[in-house]
Amino acid sequence: MGALHFKLTLAYDGTAYHGWQAQKSGRGVQNHLEAALDRLFGPGVACESASRTDTGVHAFGMVTGIAIPQERFRMAPGQFALALNAVLPPDIRVRSASRVPGNFHARFDATGKQYRYHVWNHPAMNPLLRDRAWHVPQPLDLAAMESAARAFVGRHDFRAFTSRRAGTLGDSVRTVTRCSVKKNGPQLTITIEGGGFLYKMCRAMVGTLVGIGRDGMGSADVAEILAGRDRRQAGMNAPAHGLVLWKVFYPSRRRNSGA
Amino acid sequence: MGALHFKLTLAYDGTAYHGWQAQKSGRGVQNHLEAALDRLFGPGVACESASRTDTGVHAFGMVTGIAIPQERFRMAPGQFALALNAVLPPDIRVRSASRVPGNFHARFDATGKQYRYHVWNHPAMNPLLRDRAWHVPQPLDLAAMESAARAFVGRHDFRAFTSRRAGTLGDSVRTVTRCSVKKNGPQLTITIEGGGFLYKMCRAMVGTLVGIGRDGMGSADVAEILAGRDRRQAGMNAPAHGLVLWKVFYPSRRRNSGA
Repeated sequence: MGALHFKLTLAYDGTAYHGWQAQKSGRGVQNHLEAALDRLFGPGVACESASRTDTGVHAFGMVTGIAIPQERFRMAPGQFALALNAVLPPDIRVRSASRVPGNFHARFDATGKQYRYHVWNHPAMNPLLRDRAWHVPQPLDLAAMESAARAFVGRHDFRAFTSRRAGTLGDSVRTVTRCSVKKNGPQLTITIEGGGFLYKMCRAMVGTLVGIGRDGMGSADVAEILAGRDRRQAGMNAPAHGLVLWKVFYPSRRRNSGA
Repeated sequence: MGALHFKLTLAYDGTAYHGWQAQKSGRGVQNHLEAALDRLFGPGVACESASRTDTGVHAFGMVTGIAIPQERFRMAPGQFALALNAVLPPDIRVRSASRVPGNFHARFDATGKQYRYHVWNHPAMNPLLRDRAWHVPQPLDLAAMESAARAFVGRHDFRAFTSRRAGTLGDSVRTVTRCSVKKNGPQLTITIEGGGFLYKMCRAMVGTLVGIGRDGMGSADVAEILAGRDRRQAGMNAPAHGLVLWKVFYPSRRRNSGA
């Protein structure tokens, strides 16, 4: 018999986890999703995700694809998300589960991703956001940050913005389609969208933007740092707990399936 | 010698506490503030707060007044909030500490308060808000809620909206100056402002608004429930963890001090 293919959209609070990926420690978010699938359908239902997230990073729109042998799926498809949420821990939730064609691949079909990074910019941290935002007590020059953010947009070699060692890096050219800074009282939201990202690239970009906003980083210029292709010229990696994998983009279903 | 008087504005995550008020258990937020004042200035510096909050309720703008004997205050006033935050737990933060005249009284001088209540209205809870918002999975009729919210505005007997037993209640007439429902995707923010509030009044108002939005509550009408003055006619108390004491209002300093 065939298999039923699903696209799951998941949100999770990364505070208690060692990142998305399944770990031997069992502390990956994926371990818990696989355990839930195990409980509902028996062993061996693997999931293939669109992306990974590091320890402490959150997700609102992680996407993963799964295939379940048809004879093991004994519920209405509309009940699937509810059934998973009933066995998942409360800091991991399936926002939706939708049927997809058998050739859907969460990673290869993804056309891009959006990340959001939250900064709390006030002398005192907001305790309601202490696991959700980076506390930056110093005043920030918002105009300098906005201008620097614009310089990230485009197709560039992002070698200066990854923690991957040069020997293991491969092609480091990526396209950033959006990089914006929005202020709402003491809260800044940095939105970064692109076709693909290098290891810790978002956090290096945010660390650089905040460095520029805080003290100009010696009037560092994003274009120069990109051109220098040297990690030491860019800012620190912003802490993990301010970052959220917000959304993964796919071609519309109509185009994808040719239906 | 005299005393230095301060108005502290505090934010806290109420999840781990048994409400604002000092408890014998030591689990009141106030216990921690008093312990911090103790550490900085020695025993006996009491605080008088504008309000209380119940177990699990959060605050962004709790206000408390304190008086510190002048000879014990050995720092620049601008360092006071930083010094307190250095000894407070991370889920309690002093947002600001400002000098006030000796006759300032956090509770008696307050002219009103604003509460905000957050609802997450989607079949799956947002795990990033699980200690911050009430999860309501059923569809809500926003127009019905907005119309019901408007009916709360004004001077009314709110006896139907308090958990205080009738014999202990006293005058139950209060003035609500604002009650609004704002939707941002699956998140609803209910803002309630007024001169004063009865015990658990906000949570009964929110529970009633959600009940009306969910199933019409038998087409209950807020004006009728107010007139009935019977707690059983109103909706359930919305859970504590969605509520935030957002702001306490005072007359402007100029008017207050006559300076």
